[in-house]
Amino acid sequence: MLVVMKPNATQAEIEAVVEKIRALGLTPHPIPGAERVAIGITGNKGAVDPEPFTTMSGVADALRVSQPFKLVSREVKGEDSVIDVGGVPLGGPAITVMAGPCSVESREQLLEAAHAVKRAGARFLRGGAFKPRTSPYEFQGLGEEGLKLLALAREETGLKVVTEVMDVESLPMVADYADVLQIGARNMQNYSLLKQLGTIRKPILLKRGPAATIKEWLMAAEYVVSRGNYQVALCERGIRTFETMTRNTLDLNAVPILKSLTHLPVIVDPSHGIGLRAHVPAMARAGVAAGADGIIVEVHPRPEKALSDGQQSLTPPEFEELMRQVRVIAGAVGRSI
Amino acid sequence: MLVVMKPNATQAEIEAVVEKIRALGLTPHPIPGAERVAIGITGNKGAVDPEPFTTMSGVADALRVSQPFKLVSREVKGEDSVIDVGGVPLGGPAITVMAGPCSVESREQLLEAAHAVKRAGARFLRGGAFKPRTSPYEFQGLGEEGLKLLALAREETGLKVVTEVMDVESLPMVADYADVLQIGARNMQNYSLLKQLGTIRKPILLKRGPAATIKEWLMAAEYVVSRGNYQVALCERGIRTFETMTRNTLDLNAVPILKSLTHLPVIVDPSHGIGLRAHVPAMARAGVAAGADGIIVEVHPRPEKALSDGQQSLTPPEFEELMRQVRVIAGAVGRSI
Amino acid sequence: MLVVMKPNATQAEIEAVVEKIRALGLTPHPIPGAERVAIGITGNKGAVDPEPFTTMSGVADALRVSQPFKLVSREVKGEDSVIDVGGVPLGGPAITVMAGPCSVESREQLLEAAHAVKRAGARFLRGGAFKPRTSPYEFQGLGEEGLKLLALAREETGLKVVTEVMDVESLPMVADYADVLQIGARNMQNYSLLKQLGTIRKPILLKRGPAATIKEWLMAAEYVVSRGNYQVALCERGIRTFETMTRNTLDLNAVPILKSLTHLPVIVDPSHGIGLRAHVPAMARAGVAAGADGIIVEVHPRPEKALSDGQQSLTPPEFEELMRQVRVIAGAVGRSI
Amino acid sequence: MLVVMKPNATQAEIEAVVEKIRALGLTPHPIPGAERVAIGITGNKGAVDPEPFTTMSGVADALRVSQPFKLVSREVKGEDSVIDVGGVPLGGPAITVMAGPCSVESREQLLEAAHAVKRAGARFLRGGAFKPRTSPYEFQGLGEEGLKLLALAREETGLKVVTEVMDVESLPMVADYADVLQIGARNMQNYSLLKQLGTIRKPILLKRGPAATIKEWLMAAEYVVSRGNYQVALCERGIRTFETMTRNTLDLNAVPILKSLTHLPVIVDPSHGIGLRAHVPAMARAGVAAGADGIIVEVHPRPEKALSDGQQSLTPPEFEELMRQVRVIAGAVGRSI
Repeated sequence: MLVVMKPNATQAEIEAVVEKIRALGLTPHPIPGAERVAIGITGNKGAVDPEPFTTMSGVADALRVSQPFKLVSREVKGEDSVIDVGGVPLGGPAITVMAGPCSVESREQLLEAAHAVKRAGARFLRGGAFKPRTSPYEFQGLGEEGLKLLALAREETGLKVVTEVMDVESLPMVADYADVLQIGARNMQNYSLLKQLGTIRKPILLKRGPAATIKEWLMAAEYVVSRGNYQVALCERGIRTFETMTRNTLDLNAVPILKSLTHLPVIVDPSHGIGLRAHVPAMARAGVAAGADGIIVEVHPRPEKALSDGQQSLTPPEFEELMRQVRVIAGAVGRSI
Repeated sequence: MLVVMKPNATQAEIEAVVEKIRALGLTPHPIPGAERVAIGITGNKGAVDPEPFTTMSGVADALRVSQPFKLVSREVKGEDSVIDVGGVPLGGPAITVMAGPCSVESREQLLEAAHAVKRAGARFLRGGAFKPRTSPYEFQGLGEEGLKLLALAREETGLKVVTEVMDVESLPMVADYADVLQIGARNMQNYSLLKQLGTIRKPILLKRGPAATIKEWLMAAEYVVSRGNYQVALCERGIRTFETMTRNTLDLNAVPILKSLTHLPVIVDPSHGIGLRAHVPAMARAGVAAGADGIIVEVHPRPEKALSDGQQSLTPPEFEELMRQVRVIAGAVGRSI
Repeated sequence: MLVVMKPNATQAEIEAVVEKIRALGLTPHPIPGAERVAIGITGNKGAVDPEPFTTMSGVADALRVSQPFKLVSREVKGEDSVIDVGGVPLGGPAITVMAGPCSVESREQLLEAAHAVKRAGARFLRGGAFKPRTSPYEFQGLGEEGLKLLALAREETGLKVVTEVMDVESLPMVADYADVLQIGARNMQNYSLLKQLGTIRKPILLKRGPAATIKEWLMAAEYVVSRGNYQVALCERGIRTFETMTRNTLDLNAVPILKSLTHLPVIVDPSHGIGLRAHVPAMARAGVAAGADGIIVEVHPRPEKALSDGQQSLTPPEFEELMRQVRVIAGAVGRSI
Repeated sequence: MLVVMKPNATQAEIEAVVEKIRALGLTPHPIPGAERVAIGITGNKGAVDPEPFTTMSGVADALRVSQPFKLVSREVKGEDSVIDVGGVPLGGPAITVMAGPCSVESREQLLEAAHAVKRAGARFLRGGAFKPRTSPYEFQGLGEEGLKLLALAREETGLKVVTEVMDVESLPMVADYADVLQIGARNMQNYSLLKQLGTIRKPILLKRGPAATIKEWLMAAEYVVSRGNYQVALCERGIRTFETMTRNTLDLNAVPILKSLTHLPVIVDPSHGIGLRAHVPAMARAGVAAGADGIIVEVHPRPEKALSDGQQSLTPPEFEELMRQVRVIAGAVGRSI
């Protein structure tokens, strides 16, 4: 159920609705919008009776939300959400560009990458300090040392830092350094972590699990949002199919589907998606043409020496060329970078 | 093995190579190119010794083809193939646009659709006269009556006709009416049909099977080409995955992969791919941005009354709007319509 | 709609119902059963009114069939279908065992295999004379010469012959030699072929397509049955998934699902399913334990020299051992071999 | 690399090898076996030179391990691992049976289920106190209250308790109550949790992720084992495919593959696998016939009232009947319950 307030509803009227919801033993979720406030209701077992609300002062309407995901749904909020990351928008009319190495490996590597992607037009620096690796014997990331290097790179370039958090234990530490917390594909349904993310005030980049349906993905986002953290963006990074020529199957069908179902920003990761350096630009272009709000791209000064994912990382000149192409596509769909 | 002739090799020199291949008990496949001729060799069990060829007059080089698909491979022919469909190119710099109803249903329906898609800029009319349907109790197409209507629409509009052939028996009849023969996804590995298609001189649009790997798809094309019919285009129309919100998962990753592996034109079918009218334009845009050589789109004057696939067919005004969008994307990637 | 006759209904009463159905412009399908006749009705657009039938003499009931597949459904025929293959049952209480080489390669190879599988207890000999191969350059089968060898092996051993038919053109020839016609996975939705199979009087073994849902598979069987050929058995041979350690993913879940949805016999093909010789017996045992009516297994006198599928073929001693194991499992689920 | 000691090697000889490995900057993993000790070596970048070891006293051989998973591999330990759960074996010749409700819901429900499954022959009681649910608005489990009820049921019945742990935070608490810690499918690659599990001394039941390859699954087990906890069993519970008639596709192919690749016990979960009560017994039978070491089955006194997974839970009488069937199959493959 969603209670939609009138554009000119007063704070007192809003609070009266919130109180009424609580009085019924349900949970109110006030959702700020550009023009008016809406209040989502969760915690009900069956249908909620709209009548007690529609007759209240300041209330425009009370609507049933038909989807199992509620607060992330377009039904609840028609306009696109834009996340303000310390002054840099994530989502919104301009295409969000995040770029940088798969793993933070060294001061030199990271700063070189950061300056390069900044020069090419990115406003977010990606880089992993904690790395989920299939094998316990592979490089697991530099840990806090990596986070410090990311903070240094931010200081030097002004780029906002996107980095992965793998568990609740390291969440406070990672949140201290990061501007955006990335949740990896393998943690998409780590509900303990998702619940914790709902209690903090940092933007989240939630990657799609390799076998997650779009609905399950939105439900995972709902875990975070229903706890109070509305700053969630979704990142399509490829699903698992029978095809073996590509690392994953980047599912661009998800982009228009998501844009119609949810108000959250949608980012595309062509690097993990197709997993082959030569074809990353084509998939980045296609992602923007499909309507994505941004891209996240792996860039490494020397991909052949990368400690992880070298085969899908672009060199700085390749990234510059990709940016040129994406800029043209963005213009063609009425957006900018 | 591929024997590459010098640009100025004479016809006699070419024939001498062909004879030498035959003398070794192997099969020669002369492949015409813009600048020079290459001659593919198949029928060998192990590696072919290059030496007898490299020393022949007019021969530039003799190369091993590393892929299991040979004649359709970029290794064998570096430049893009363009199929000449009675003066209209399929493939090449301009984006090929095919559009029309899923099924031919009536004279009025087809002519209305044909005029509409022609007006919007399509140069090929699609429409099924023989329909492969999951249920034996569903509408199976108008048969020859449908083919006659397609021919009539061609006469009235000048559009080239693309229509499906389902079996060897009806091949002569369908080939009589059609300009391009479409092979449906479920027939992609109907090898008896593929072999027969190799013996005729009509362009083929070979759809990807819903569970076919890219390699298997190229091998299917190789069946046709190895029998002598080089006029094959590939059509990505979605693969089967676990996602149920879309009809199929249109695999745009296949587009850049194919463009690097084969010289055949690559067409994208957003209608069957995502299967939802509202999202067809996004996927058409994305396909062209990913590097496809063309699109094939379902258009019906009254989708809500269509005998098949109404939920994924565009209305003529929606198609016009899609063409506008695709034209802009085509320009952004250096192509035209 | 299904009209169920009383156990003692006369032929005249049955024919009256058939006539009434025709008079309504619909198609009657009399379905013989052990105790009574039922008459399926197809060709209707909406629901058929039961009333005109329930009041007719000899009619017990008129039921709506809720599944999209009608004549193959358990709703229409409760008891298991058993196909009589010249005196040998396919389906029914005893486990049907089909075995033999992937391809017929030579007189010696085939006879050696035939005698071996006969000795071990198989009653059907499998062997391909026409082989659908991914590559046009691979061995395509011996053709009619292979069929003649199969007939010879039948004569020598008394085994019934199961062999693949790939197209309508060769159907009369293959039907002349074979006792059971196998339709390969890649032809499961070759509707032109399925329709033709509905017009002949030979048992059909319909393999599941690698991306076919159970429902689509039953609809494919319905194509054959709705044309009048009720002698159809289904063969699970593995679906395509992301797992690469096995050739396919043998989907044994399909076995109990099918046994509840359809009266047709269900055969399991562990050889193509898992595709690894060492593990074929485990999957054969599991198939029978899951409730399959039979198995089809690849056996080759010298798998390491096989022209196709050697890595999944058992040697005769391995097959003998598999039969010993399967016999024990069959006993454990109340069946015999 | 694996250093295999002679059967009569002394403790001092073993320690000398361990020291030598450490001196090379590598990590030793002594693996106890019935007849002899082997010492796995990890932490190397390239190949380890066997020579320094083969010449040491008490060393039989030094072998390269070809698989990416090392300590869980059959190459490293030929004999089946059997986990001793307080006197009850998990793995080994007797089929391990775990049964109980999806969620612990109440004292009455749990005790009724526990007594029923005990009576039918199960030796482990399953039941979730912390439930990973797709929706944040669904029942999330009773938490510690549920754990206390499980402990009570153990006291009353003598059954060992298997219950899920969802995160590192609750691990100490859950480990206090549980005999076996279940890791859910969605946490299979929660590496932070896996690492922590490697440091405790409780048996682990590691479920396969719905999109995890067999290799990835073994690598996940390697995370636990490489940290020192060898008590890991694997649980196949279905993978995600395109088929929608079943909840998941229980991949029984994984059973013989795993039994050949690893020494860890392999359990099959037919309840989540096929997800339909009527077909759980068929899949349980098939799992045991395929060679599984055990089964885990959902049983609820009143499935129609279950707070989760009611549609796949058996009633106590249905479970009793399943046990009867499984006992027969177990006997047929030379095992007992």
